[in-house]
Amino acid sequence: MAVASQASPFKSPFLQEPCSDRHKVANLRTSFLGWRSSRPQLAPKQQHRISCSVAPSPTQAPPLPKGAECYGVFCVTYDLKEEEKPKTWKKLVRVAVSGAAGTISNHLLFKIASGEVFGPDQPVALNLLGSDRSKEALEGVAMELEDSLYPLLREVIIGTDAYEVFRDAEWALLIGAKPRGPGMERADLLDINGQIFAAKGKALNEVASPNVKVIVVGNPCNTNALICLNNAPKIPKKNFHALTRLDENRAKCQLALKAGVFYDNVSNVTIWGNHSTTQVPDFVNAKINGRPVKEVINDHKWLEEEFTLTVQTRGGVLIKKWGRSSAASTAVSIVDAMKSLVQPTAPGDWFSSGVYAAGNTYGIDNDLVFSLPCRSKGDGDYEIVSGLTIDKYLYERIKKSEDELVAERRCVAHLIGEENGYCDLPGGDTMLPGEQ
Amino acid sequence: MAVASQASPFKSPFLQEPCSDRHKVANLRTSFLGWRSSRPQLAPKQQHRISCSVAPSPTQAPPLPKGAECYGVFCVTYDLKEEEKPKTWKKLVRVAVSGAAGTISNHLLFKIASGEVFGPDQPVALNLLGSDRSKEALEGVAMELEDSLYPLLREVIIGTDAYEVFRDAEWALLIGAKPRGPGMERADLLDINGQIFAAKGKALNEVASPNVKVIVVGNPCNTNALICLNNAPKIPKKNFHALTRLDENRAKCQLALKAGVFYDNVSNVTIWGNHSTTQVPDFVNAKINGRPVKEVINDHKWLEEEFTLTVQTRGGVLIKKWGRSSAASTAVSIVDAMKSLVQPTAPGDWFSSGVYAAGNTYGIDNDLVFSLPCRSKGDGDYEIVSGLTIDKYLYERIKKSEDELVAERRCVAHLIGEENGYCDLPGGDTMLPGEQ
Repeated sequence: MAVASQASPFKSPFLQEPCSDRHKVANLRTSFLGWRSSRPQLAPKQQHRISCSVAPSPTQAPPLPKGAECYGVFCVTYDLKEEEKPKTWKKLVRVAVSGAAGTISNHLLFKIASGEVFGPDQPVALNLLGSDRSKEALEGVAMELEDSLYPLLREVIIGTDAYEVFRDAEWALLIGAKPRGPGMERADLLDINGQIFAAKGKALNEVASPNVKVIVVGNPCNTNALICLNNAPKIPKKNFHALTRLDENRAKCQLALKAGVFYDNVSNVTIWGNHSTTQVPDFVNAKINGRPVKEVINDHKWLEEEFTLTVQTRGGVLIKKWGRSSAASTAVSIVDAMKSLVQPTAPGDWFSSGVYAAGNTYGIDNDLVFSLPCRSKGDGDYEIVSGLTIDKYLYERIKKSEDELVAERRCVAHLIGEENGYCDLPGGDTMLPGEQ
Repeated sequence: MAVASQASPFKSPFLQEPCSDRHKVANLRTSFLGWRSSRPQLAPKQQHRISCSVAPSPTQAPPLPKGAECYGVFCVTYDLKEEEKPKTWKKLVRVAVSGAAGTISNHLLFKIASGEVFGPDQPVALNLLGSDRSKEALEGVAMELEDSLYPLLREVIIGTDAYEVFRDAEWALLIGAKPRGPGMERADLLDINGQIFAAKGKALNEVASPNVKVIVVGNPCNTNALICLNNAPKIPKKNFHALTRLDENRAKCQLALKAGVFYDNVSNVTIWGNHSTTQVPDFVNAKINGRPVKEVINDHKWLEEEFTLTVQTRGGVLIKKWGRSSAASTAVSIVDAMKSLVQPTAPGDWFSSGVYAAGNTYGIDNDLVFSLPCRSKGDGDYEIVSGLTIDKYLYERIKKSEDELVAERRCVAHLIGEENGYCDLPGGDTMLPGEQ
């Protein structure tokens, strides 16, 4: 090891000799500091992977000699040196994040790296996608991840090309989106972001793990997710999620506050529909200490009027208080959304996620990404929970949100391979206050 | 419970009847939304505590009736309802944070609330200190903490008065400090921040737990910590720390990079002295895979020249990349510093902390806060590790850092109860690049 240690990572003579897939590694120095946006010679896959000093060729793949070494902190000693890896550790999981230099990601990445999502026995690789504008910041983020010495974080890749960065991703967290500029109509925003998410879908389809789980955070997230999945035909449609978990968390908090209980007593809260002001936080099926909310909170006027409004406008209130949108709690809700898929749902409970609505039993248009009650066995997959009570109050509101999503879909027909699209979004601005 | 639930938290008739100490609670609505900076009638202790609806008086303290309820999410159901609390949970720990609306805190608070510091069986109360300027932002932070539904976070108090917010704190993380303005000399900064930390020390002395552990992050942190402990005579001097853990983390990262190993193979790294450019990252006693660094890294010129400079200037490089100082990795290093005190140090290893130097075996002035190698049994306490090799290289540099701290102490004599102070700081600017 002493000999290998002396070589400078910048002068490795082994750069042109890629590791086998089983041993593939990313070199921190190359990935971070030798930023390559032009990609002159190497094929994409080779560019952000560098080889080990003593690595088998892809065809041979013999057991690695003891003490084999790679360069760079994030070089995968984990994969290379079995004897150094805790016996209980799982196989590396690769998480790709777009908008990785933004404030939401700045909270989220450190949470994932710390083990908060996948647990203390799950090593993680982070593949970070930025833009030309943000690449310096992205290098800064990667340096801070280095300085944080997270033992579970074994690999970081940064780049501006989704076809490189999404490669082999088992999770894709699509946070980056174009914020709405002054005077921009919702239709314009749908089109601009729709194009971004169509491109992301194509890249995922091409290079990500075929069973990648995708969580769309960039707004308008439901329709962005619909566009994304339509552009990624190789990936199961049910693997795509639009984030409505922050809405669910806010709804739980408000119900707890009103009832005077701690929030772990609130369960079975659904957000139905679009992540917009037409969203429907469901107090009809929700429970407090196992009892229907309407039995515990007698103030039904508050439930029907203030509750929903408070949940919807929470983001706007926070922006006024805080001077910027709520990055920290959004990151927490992304962690929650991921944990809901990798940990079994508590018996009898469910969680909300914007999912492809095919097969739902509520009569909702099957070809939408619609927030619905879901439960998971903790295997990354989920099922839509059937049998919830849809009373007149819920029905009318859910229908309105469905209508909005159908109109959004018509607006982006050109991005999902359909013809005869036209834009007739229902009147009024239904962007959530504080959403970009 | 149904009856209690209907009452508005703003109209509780029980506000004037404080809970017993054992059952004391903070009401979210009062603490967050009914911000009181003027404090017209109630004594400080009563102001940010509100009572439970069914609570014993302090003198009686009978067992609480089952189903006793408080208002607000953060009302301590934990303390009140034994039957709802997991049997394995520990007693609530109270953590006070100054500068709580800043970017470092915005990362740190969510980490503490998530259980990253104290573990999954340790409920937490956060007492957040802001300024008049930041109180809206602080409300925003508290709302985001609410929306994050952390099960371990049982109480949040926000305020602008250290005598209220530090009450009963078992940990005090002093992050808030005045940033250096344009043209401000280091002596001016020492004086301005020194006054802030003298005031913080007095407040801690008065109202915090007598065994509170204090970590000073605001710069110049060593001398701020010295001022703070001199103004808190009731609290053991050894309970005060100045944060040099980010420097240690950065040093470990650089050694790992140079040696081509992952950072969990790097141990025994000390930062000696002042958290300034006179700091001494110690490669003489550090180890890689249990072997002396100088045996593993033969490039001694790099160790003696580039290594130290790289560690010192990392913050400045990050600011250039990232456009702002490194909040996320600073927060991580605060978590690391706390964990080093509540978890036993690995056998044979140590960690760095700026501590009161009394009793050190290295001949360093006993009346300084000096970064030294420490180890802990995980009980919140620590001991200074003796017997490290101080060669000529280290000695000269450690002496220079000591001289600087002695000069800083003379500069702030008026703040630590000494006379005849005068300011003759060594020439040159030794603020770390990127530090405020």
